[in-house]
Amino acid sequence: MPPTESPTPAATRSAMWIAPAAPSSRAYLNSASAGLPAAPVLDAVLAYLRREAELGALDAAAEAAPRLEAAYDNAARLLGARPDEIAFVESGNRGLQALLASVPLVPGDRVLVARAEWGGSLAMLASLDGVSVEPMPTDSRGVLDLEATRAMADGRVRLILLTWCPATNGLVNPAAEIGALAAELGAIFILDACQAVGQLPVDVGVLGCHGLVASGRKWLRGPRGTALLYASRSFLTRTRPAMPDQFGANWSAGRWQARADARRFETGEAFMAGRLGLGVAIEGALAIGMDRLQARIATLAGHLREGLAALPGVTVYDTGPALSGIVTFGVAGVSAAAARDRLAAQGISVSVREARYAPFDMAARGLAEVVRAAPHVFNDEAEIDATIAAVAALRDMGRSAVG
Amino acid sequence: MPPTESPTPAATRSAMWIAPAAPSSRAYLNSASAGLPAAPVLDAVLAYLRREAELGALDAAAEAAPRLEAAYDNAARLLGARPDEIAFVESGNRGLQALLASVPLVPGDRVLVARAEWGGSLAMLASLDGVSVEPMPTDSRGVLDLEATRAMADGRVRLILLTWCPATNGLVNPAAEIGALAAELGAIFILDACQAVGQLPVDVGVLGCHGLVASGRKWLRGPRGTALLYASRSFLTRTRPAMPDQFGANWSAGRWQARADARRFETGEAFMAGRLGLGVAIEGALAIGMDRLQARIATLAGHLREGLAALPGVTVYDTGPALSGIVTFGVAGVSAAAARDRLAAQGISVSVREARYAPFDMAARGLAEVVRAAPHVFNDEAEIDATIAAVAALRDMGRSAVG
Repeated sequence: MPPTESPTPAATRSAMWIAPAAPSSRAYLNSASAGLPAAPVLDAVLAYLRREAELGALDAAAEAAPRLEAAYDNAARLLGARPDEIAFVESGNRGLQALLASVPLVPGDRVLVARAEWGGSLAMLASLDGVSVEPMPTDSRGVLDLEATRAMADGRVRLILLTWCPATNGLVNPAAEIGALAAELGAIFILDACQAVGQLPVDVGVLGCHGLVASGRKWLRGPRGTALLYASRSFLTRTRPAMPDQFGANWSAGRWQARADARRFETGEAFMAGRLGLGVAIEGALAIGMDRLQARIATLAGHLREGLAALPGVTVYDTGPALSGIVTFGVAGVSAAAARDRLAAQGISVSVREARYAPFDMAARGLAEVVRAAPHVFNDEAEIDATIAAVAALRDMGRSAVG
Repeated sequence: MPPTESPTPAATRSAMWIAPAAPSSRAYLNSASAGLPAAPVLDAVLAYLRREAELGALDAAAEAAPRLEAAYDNAARLLGARPDEIAFVESGNRGLQALLASVPLVPGDRVLVARAEWGGSLAMLASLDGVSVEPMPTDSRGVLDLEATRAMADGRVRLILLTWCPATNGLVNPAAEIGALAAELGAIFILDACQAVGQLPVDVGVLGCHGLVASGRKWLRGPRGTALLYASRSFLTRTRPAMPDQFGANWSAGRWQARADARRFETGEAFMAGRLGLGVAIEGALAIGMDRLQARIATLAGHLREGLAALPGVTVYDTGPALSGIVTFGVAGVSAAAARDRLAAQGISVSVREARYAPFDMAARGLAEVVRAAPHVFNDEAEIDATIAAVAALRDMGRSAVG
């Protein structure tokens, strides 16, 4: 459902990008897991797949080459990057794997991460023998303490990996400040922006990151199985990709050499329909405007957070001065899974995230799981109010279970 | 178009799997690049994507969980493997990257490859410093010489990587014999079956391979952006994956440990619609029957090869006693690209492959490029005859250009 501001010419133009392709009577508050695509995105993907079936996949790609190329330009515009710094990969984690494998980490190196670092990244780093992975110090709310981080850092800090918006906490980490610190330290700075791109304006120049990944399917409302990868020109110059294929490397004068641009992280074969759809989804985000998206999501999330915090027996877990569209909470006496299922039965879609999605942070906060609700621009206040009322009823269920 | 055998009950049952979803007046001979999907495959993918747009991607996956799980069973049946030895990955190259990164290669190790090894694999191996990559000896036709290979091998051969059916040559490498040799040497044996699975019956037990990858989009006629990965239980036990994410590794007792099964090579996020579609495509291949597929493809490819070989000025480049459905050729005085474009203008779809797709083999044969035609079960003799006639006309064009 569109936001309730009075229509303006810009709002009229962007309405087609706001409504989900398949309008639903449910309150879908699960965009941190997967956003609902707008009709132009779904239509582009389905039409492309039909065309592949008619022409064969290679001829379809040749026919769509200008639109596929435009996806790089759209992505570059969205991130404040150059098109040659953009790659399309299959998932945020594939992007992180590719970037991390390019960093020449050796035993003894230190990697600093957020306390609320994404479990997937921590799993990847755990396979690097002899590399020390250390959460950066935080204050009692889990907010990054820059001074304490500077004090713990030394010349062995080769990499800072930061989850900008954690998956299990509404906080927004101070990415640009960490970027400045990485520059001070001469460390490579990689930003996991999977939960950020599509809900926050992004400018890689301001962030000072050497690499960034962003899911296609979440806040960007693109197809599942797509992600954006940004690698700065300096990162591309300083590093070597792990194992580029015949697309990621050029064959010339009897040897293979990695491409100069970020497409070294792609492979020759890809989900081209998804790439096209993600390009269209980015076009939609730009048409709505990232400032407007951020404001609307913040309004809805703030409304939800306030309403939930006012309910006795309900704890909102989000911490910190800057908050994202991710709202995490728990209901006394009700497991997260039971809460999710009960809300689902009432047509409200939320998700559950367990400790392994952010092990350091969840352990520090003594949490085993959270319920996660994430409103997007297609939601409205009525859905938020219905959700607050439904959680209130859950709380009563929890009380009677306890009592 | 269906094959011309007289209908049998089995043929009737399999007819829905043979015809492309979008019947065309073109002669599509490009299945070595990308096969045309049958209607049940395209329909399954489109319906799943619509369902994702309605429900959100996570609820759609939960709803389809039994069908997604069945895809592993179908793949295991197709390959003669166990379901826990199967992973779905995004492309053959992603699968090869994952398998190769698991093999603990160190400087001084030798890797033996086919002379007609896939350029993508050679590009990947080229990034491993100090590892010697050596084509196995062949006879004058490019056919692997097992005795000469045994003679050149020693204890430093850690890995044999074999492209079963090369992309630029109709030959079929003796995979099972190489598997036996790898066992003798105590080497890991990885089989690139991207051009084999879907046109040849496969039994990983007979092949003796520790790992295998197969494209989804080629002979299996599955969605673009999908591939099968097989990793034997012994490979899984002996090796460590490079950087599994929170899906590929389990979080338990404060540490991350790679999953025991082949899904360690997957990531939490994936093109689920494609995975589902590939499962359906495999069901189709099994319904038609791999023996029948092999026989029909061999008949059509043999017919095409014979017809082309009989044309003066046309050279068929396929070599060896065992040939696949890939037919490669050149026309005197006509560049491969000009041949492809001219045939395309007459509604005949073929492709061009340059030296970088198989650099050792193309150099050994003195070829810079080939035209590649690859008939599949949905083609018929009339299309082959039309192609032969069109190439004959090309040849005349080449003659007049030369003369």
